Amino acid sequence: MSERPEARSPEARAPRGFIDRRARDVVAERTILAAVSGVYERWGFEPLDTGAFEYADALGKFLPDADRPNEGVFALQDDDEQWMALRYDLTAPLARFAAQNWETLPKPFRRYAFGPVWRNEKPGPGRFREFVQCDADTVGSARPEADAEIIAMAVEGLEAAGLPAGSAVLKINNRKLLNGLMAAAGVADEGQKLAVLRAVDKLDRLGAEGVRLLLGEGRKDESGAFTKGAGLNASAAERVLAFTAAGLGGRGETLARLAEVVGGSAEGDEGLAELAAIDAALTGLGVGVDRAIIDPSVVRGLEYYTGPVFEAELLLSTTDEKGQPMRFGSIGGGGRYDDLVARFTGERTPATGFSFGVSRLAAALRAAGRDLSKAARGPVVVIAFSPERMADYFAVAQEIRAAGIAAEVYLGGSGMKAQMKYADRRLSPAAIIVGDDELAAGTVTVKDLDLGRALAAKVSDNAEWRAERPGQQTIPRGELVEALRRILAAS
Amino acid sequence: MSERPEARSPEARAPRGFIDRRARDVVAERTILAAVSGVYERWGFEPLDTGAFEYADALGKFLPDADRPNEGVFALQDDDEQWMALRYDLTAPLARFAAQNWETLPKPFRRYAFGPVWRNEKPGPGRFREFVQCDADTVGSARPEADAEIIAMAVEGLEAAGLPAGSAVLKINNRKLLNGLMAAAGVADEGQKLAVLRAVDKLDRLGAEGVRLLLGEGRKDESGAFTKGAGLNASAAERVLAFTAAGLGGRGETLARLAEVVGGSAEGDEGLAELAAIDAALTGLGVGVDRAIIDPSVVRGLEYYTGPVFEAELLLSTTDEKGQPMRFGSIGGGGRYDDLVARFTGERTPATGFSFGVSRLAAALRAAGRDLSKAARGPVVVIAFSPERMADYFAVAQEIRAAGIAAEVYLGGSGMKAQMKYADRRLSPAAIIVGDDELAAGTVTVKDLDLGRALAAKVSDNAEWRAERPGQQTIPRGELVEALRRILAAS
Repeated sequence: MSERPEARSPEARAPRGFIDRRARDVVAERTILAAVSGVYERWGFEPLDTGAFEYADALGKFLPDADRPNEGVFALQDDDEQWMALRYDLTAPLARFAAQNWETLPKPFRRYAFGPVWRNEKPGPGRFREFVQCDADTVGSARPEADAEIIAMAVEGLEAAGLPAGSAVLKINNRKLLNGLMAAAGVADEGQKLAVLRAVDKLDRLGAEGVRLLLGEGRKDESGAFTKGAGLNASAAERVLAFTAAGLGGRGETLARLAEVVGGSAEGDEGLAELAAIDAALTGLGVGVDRAIIDPSVVRGLEYYTGPVFEAELLLSTTDEKGQPMRFGSIGGGGRYDDLVARFTGERTPATGFSFGVSRLAAALRAAGRDLSKAARGPVVVIAFSPERMADYFAVAQEIRAAGIAAEVYLGGSGMKAQMKYADRRLSPAAIIVGDDELAAGTVTVKDLDLGRALAAKVSDNAEWRAERPGQQTIPRGELVEALRRILAAS
Repeated sequence: MSERPEARSPEARAPRGFIDRRARDVVAERTILAAVSGVYERWGFEPLDTGAFEYADALGKFLPDADRPNEGVFALQDDDEQWMALRYDLTAPLARFAAQNWETLPKPFRRYAFGPVWRNEKPGPGRFREFVQCDADTVGSARPEADAEIIAMAVEGLEAAGLPAGSAVLKINNRKLLNGLMAAAGVADEGQKLAVLRAVDKLDRLGAEGVRLLLGEGRKDESGAFTKGAGLNASAAERVLAFTAAGLGGRGETLARLAEVVGGSAEGDEGLAELAAIDAALTGLGVGVDRAIIDPSVVRGLEYYTGPVFEAELLLSTTDEKGQPMRFGSIGGGGRYDDLVARFTGERTPATGFSFGVSRLAAALRAAGRDLSKAARGPVVVIAFSPERMADYFAVAQEIRAAGIAAEVYLGGSGMKAQMKYADRRLSPAAIIVGDDELAAGTVTVKDLDLGRALAAKVSDNAEWRAERPGQQTIPRGELVEALRRILAAS
């Protein structure tokens, strides 16, 4: 891999839509994944890592229809002419894995997974072409209790990751209810169904009045632009609105209200029975209405899912960069998809799961004031004066590390001032000076950099506090670790 | 992503050279990475994650020279016609990152990273096109102490990952010594230098006699095939052999012996001085000759590195699948590369680092008898008899999880026998039976599956032991967690 400087140097830049993540973000995401993994394993889900590539035909949607397909995925042709593509989510690889190993897997098969996924889309602010997802799925159980388990586990996972209890709620709906509603409202046409779903999806933004127009003939917005409606008659539109408004109160009340709107249609009744079983299981698991509700206005992903759908919504009101109040909204979702494994085997295989974006959850945690970046602080820095004394500096650093405290010897070529600046830049808690005097006397000088930063920030210039916690002290070598522990405990 | 079964189902298989990793392997690799990360952070190295893709020109070696380059990397053309390639190691992205952010980085910049890398090579047994590497590098320090730090940290990392102390040794060499040796032996031609390195690299396999022939006119092997030699005269060949044999004994002795062979040439003296400084720093760090030696026969990667080179070798004698004794050999390596950042900036930037393959280390740990797969065992399984009782089963599972023990309710559609088989397949420690009798009496029945497995394996059929540890017991519900803790503690 030897490489001489070339006549024309390449520009050092990451490809568009790909980012470098430094310690703060890496530590935050690892902390989340460790906490969530712990929860998922406690629920009996085993980890699975599949490769980055799948054959394009296994991914399904993205079958190459041109010489070089690039609709949504990163695809390339292998030596043997087969098209491969980087996974765009963790569900498609799971479906392939489950189909491939179905005979030998324990059934139902519960697995969780996390890792990068890739989307070949136009990058933009906050919109990346590579991001980390974390999924949990149960394949091979048609029971509504499998959905309930996923929901309860997702709630517990989000809380274990650091979301304060009550700051997120899982909203549950069921595609079968929607289908029952459509049947009751006399909607058979697929295009009209889609128009109804789209109208309902705008409830947050337009309110009931706007949605009523979109369910009927159409709506003119403030600019005068007209959006054609779904064409329902007034009573059908009211039925849909009553359906979306049924989500208030406890899960039992919601179910009772929904029964009035969609009950009687075969599919609606099936959906209601599933939700009732989910409700009972959630109650058995101790998941109350403060953490999981039934909300018929959730329609996202309904085209994809075949039964219950879930959406995790952050309830905290946060502020954007300009200090404006902002709804954080959805931080994850999932549902039942019984068709995915069937693509390979021809046999319908029940499956249900939940997925969240890890960096999106990290952003939510920051918005919730949960700072996960503490661990990203720098090591204690042993100042290096003289090349002849390096072995002594190394011995001091090793002593500190042996006590479990991060430490390093400065290895650059700069002087004292630059070394202090370096330690400060790394958010080091302390710098250690081991000059000739100290070596002769068996002492070390410890400089409390946290204190220095606090003083610089004028957090405190209290003389008494300074006396208690001297900015710089020369102490016997044997007391070094203890002094560092005091500094770290105060930080 | 909705997808209806297609007329012709795709075959469920992973692309060639990519593997699915189940719990055992995932847990082993995570355990290694957590331990090594802890060590690296204690040494002041910060984590960094770069994206999977780099621009092909930034990767250097793999500049597209055809419409679709595929020499060694997975490359594709972006919408804007720029070629991107998946990273083939973690060093090239670091060089790009360091060049891109040099002005704002703390210097020296110490970072560690782990993640998948991709090689577009012909897959084979044990040869994958995607694997996880773990690297630590210091950019911006020319001091030999930076090399020593990397070496000492690598040793500590491997031990923290689970390699018994003394089971691996870091072998250190220096390209400058080789260059000095070549100068002393009168070798100026690059092709001849390469032939000498190739001959030395065969020392393990051919011994000194075979290498002597390859250094001279050439060697005929048992099949009669002739390999042309490097063409050194006898005294030059002896000098090379003396060089490679200088690695016995302590680091100081080796250095003294090497000084006799390569001392006097400017570059040889420089290399000796660097190794002497590394030796002193390692001593200061408490790394003795049992963990790091100077071994001039290490030549791998010497074309790539510009100064010191390191190779971590596993000393354990292991056996292959057929029970034959096997040398595990190299499990990682590194060295100093001062040219890589210069590709972008034009300025030579000193850098040094160490890299190891995570699954290779996991295999080494298994060979060393360190089983990391314990955590891959299954959850306690609550047997499900009756759909009406699911909420009760869930409450029991929740109780167990609340005590920190993994547990799940069986959610398939099968009967008691199949459920027990399922629990056994998942390596569950116990199955819990909560039938109507138990519910009425406020009890649970606990079946010790570890014991069942032990008995099945005829490990023990001792009646006394069975009495102490009953295979199945019905106990008050309040004693459930305690009973499970006993079973887990005994496993």
